[in-house]
Amino acid sequence: MCTVGAKAKAIINQSRENVARMVGGKAEDIIFTSGGTEANNLVLHTAIEHFRRNCRAAEQGEGHQNGCTGLPHIITSNVEHDSVKLAAEHLQRDGKADVTFVPVSKVTARVEVEDIIAMVRPNTCLVSIMLANNETGVIMPVQGICQRIKFLNKQQERLRILIHTDAAQALGKFRVDACELGVDYLTIVGHKFYAPRIGALYVKGPGTKTPLYPMLFGGGQERSFRPGTENTPMIAGLGKAAELVAANLPEYEAHMRSTRLYLEEQLKATFKDKLHFNSHYPGSDILPNTCNVSILGPTLQGWRVLSHCRKLLASVGAACHSDSGNRPSHILLNCGVPTEVAANALRLSLGRRTTKEDVDAVVDDLKEAVLQLERMN
Amino acid sequence: MCTVGAKAKAIINQSRENVARMVGGKAEDIIFTSGGTEANNLVLHTAIEHFRRNCRAAEQGEGHQNGCTGLPHIITSNVEHDSVKLAAEHLQRDGKADVTFVPVSKVTARVEVEDIIAMVRPNTCLVSIMLANNETGVIMPVQGICQRIKFLNKQQERLRILIHTDAAQALGKFRVDACELGVDYLTIVGHKFYAPRIGALYVKGPGTKTPLYPMLFGGGQERSFRPGTENTPMIAGLGKAAELVAANLPEYEAHMRSTRLYLEEQLKATFKDKLHFNSHYPGSDILPNTCNVSILGPTLQGWRVLSHCRKLLASVGAACHSDSGNRPSHILLNCGVPTEVAANALRLSLGRRTTKEDVDAVVDDLKEAVLQLERMN
Repeated sequence: MCTVGAKAKAIINQSRENVARMVGGKAEDIIFTSGGTEANNLVLHTAIEHFRRNCRAAEQGEGHQNGCTGLPHIITSNVEHDSVKLAAEHLQRDGKADVTFVPVSKVTARVEVEDIIAMVRPNTCLVSIMLANNETGVIMPVQGICQRIKFLNKQQERLRILIHTDAAQALGKFRVDACELGVDYLTIVGHKFYAPRIGALYVKGPGTKTPLYPMLFGGGQERSFRPGTENTPMIAGLGKAAELVAANLPEYEAHMRSTRLYLEEQLKATFKDKLHFNSHYPGSDILPNTCNVSILGPTLQGWRVLSHCRKLLASVGAACHSDSGNRPSHILLNCGVPTEVAANALRLSLGRRTTKEDVDAVVDDLKEAVLQLERMN
Repeated sequence: MCTVGAKAKAIINQSRENVARMVGGKAEDIIFTSGGTEANNLVLHTAIEHFRRNCRAAEQGEGHQNGCTGLPHIITSNVEHDSVKLAAEHLQRDGKADVTFVPVSKVTARVEVEDIIAMVRPNTCLVSIMLANNETGVIMPVQGICQRIKFLNKQQERLRILIHTDAAQALGKFRVDACELGVDYLTIVGHKFYAPRIGALYVKGPGTKTPLYPMLFGGGQERSFRPGTENTPMIAGLGKAAELVAANLPEYEAHMRSTRLYLEEQLKATFKDKLHFNSHYPGSDILPNTCNVSILGPTLQGWRVLSHCRKLLASVGAACHSDSGNRPSHILLNCGVPTEVAANALRLSLGRRTTKEDVDAVVDDLKEAVLQLERMN
């Protein structure tokens, strides 16, 4: 009988448990998706649909009337990944939602809890704030936001505000617990923690405690929340990678942090006051592995420096925006980095196996590149 | 510099060319998706959005007024895969579209061209008909439908009817050429032709000759038609599998057909008049590798027979519906197969490497299982 099929099913279920354990959830809370882009889009889609259904119910005397006069309102920050930013802008342009992009503080590069709360309206249906920024590494106060939003949600006649965090950058870098954070949705992206290019969405009790409305319809896989033949091999890899994170996170984190601190010291020793860290903000915690740095000088734009490096592989902004030319990152500008500094930004990410020798080689490489560029001037 | 990234890009582009060649299209016509479910849903989404935009333009004196009074209308068949059927039903239930599910002929198991054309309305915006059915293997007259629809599309003041075929079952089984067929969209599913579990959508000139509106928003990959970090390893596999199909299709096809004919002969020799082929219909061509058969008898339901087989791995209906219990397939019922025959259906698929020895073993296995079940009675 169907032993091959049963084995595949067992692998998928085991992966689901491992992914759930990594984020402090239950197996049933994990919906596998094609990646983070889909997971983030699915949350925005769900929030709009939840609002629509509530208002339809309100018309019939059920649900919450309050807030149903306008469009659904989404609150997010001005440093989100494009899969939240562009999805929200699309809804806005299409007349399907109002969106508030709350600016992060130009001092801390963090979105502040009070700034989020101040933007809540009767028709607010979703707050989506990333757990850590992909360019600066700055960790956002998601737990504080959740506490305040949950307090608001207790008000009678208030449409429930759903809370989402895109944890793409955070997983595998520091401890992430969806329950402690208090989020309803949390985006999981495999290739950010050494898993294959697949993702998942954590949903606290999908369809029971928390609404989830599918974007796709088909063969019933993932309890019809996300149908399509399961990507079994990649799901298996995601589960294994999650298991490794759950087992070894403190070790990974400590290694990445100490290597990053070493990199920062070496950069300071080499470039001295010609250096600006775009990942250092007073009072803000950052990811252990992210070093975003500008070497100051009129000819030291990030892309120029990289093109003169022999070994270093890095990007000047978000990795997925390699085609967007040489404009300074709008994320850094939004964090208060001056334009001429942002133009020189280098985003150096450290991995589980990056050694001090690798760091030395990279710093030498940068030193040579900068010397060459300055000589050319 | 970015040599690793450039290499990945080159691999993706090479795969895009290979996939395009397999379906007779250009590289730019191929949009990689997470699979067939997403590709099919994307086509329905696009058709609705195309209608909406046309009608909005018509309000402003542009576009075609005709048909803009009602909802967008979709024509499909009553034997489509759930990723078309359920997506269409969802649009209908949500009040976003009218859908006509044209019944296939109970004689030929084919949807007939005239039956499709008879259903066209001024607000028809999409015809979606699979190229070959996944359970019966019956090949649909997609080329004939395209010719007739294109004739209608030449009428002035007529909203263009977009044409889609889900070629999931057909690719790798017989020659498929999107241009010869005349379709605007064609769904490609990797794991149906020995590629990994990923898919693609062929679109004849996406965004130029043929509309394509994304469902997801994000980092700009796939020219923003389908953003999300590219699944490079699986795209590479899809390209390689497509290359193999393009190079060896006649050989694969001949082997599958002769092995299937041998299986049918052996089944006939063994079960004689207790046999009904659910894949044989007068005048209809079928896929070379599909044998859907019922062994007749009151205790010989498909699931019972399979559970008594020792070697045979097969399914009783669509592979993705393994959880749907033991009800007879609605696809077979729609093709005119009587309920008690449909309940006994076994869907036996042959592969590129299935040998006559494999066939002999399977027939023996079935013979034993049937003997056991009949004895138990």
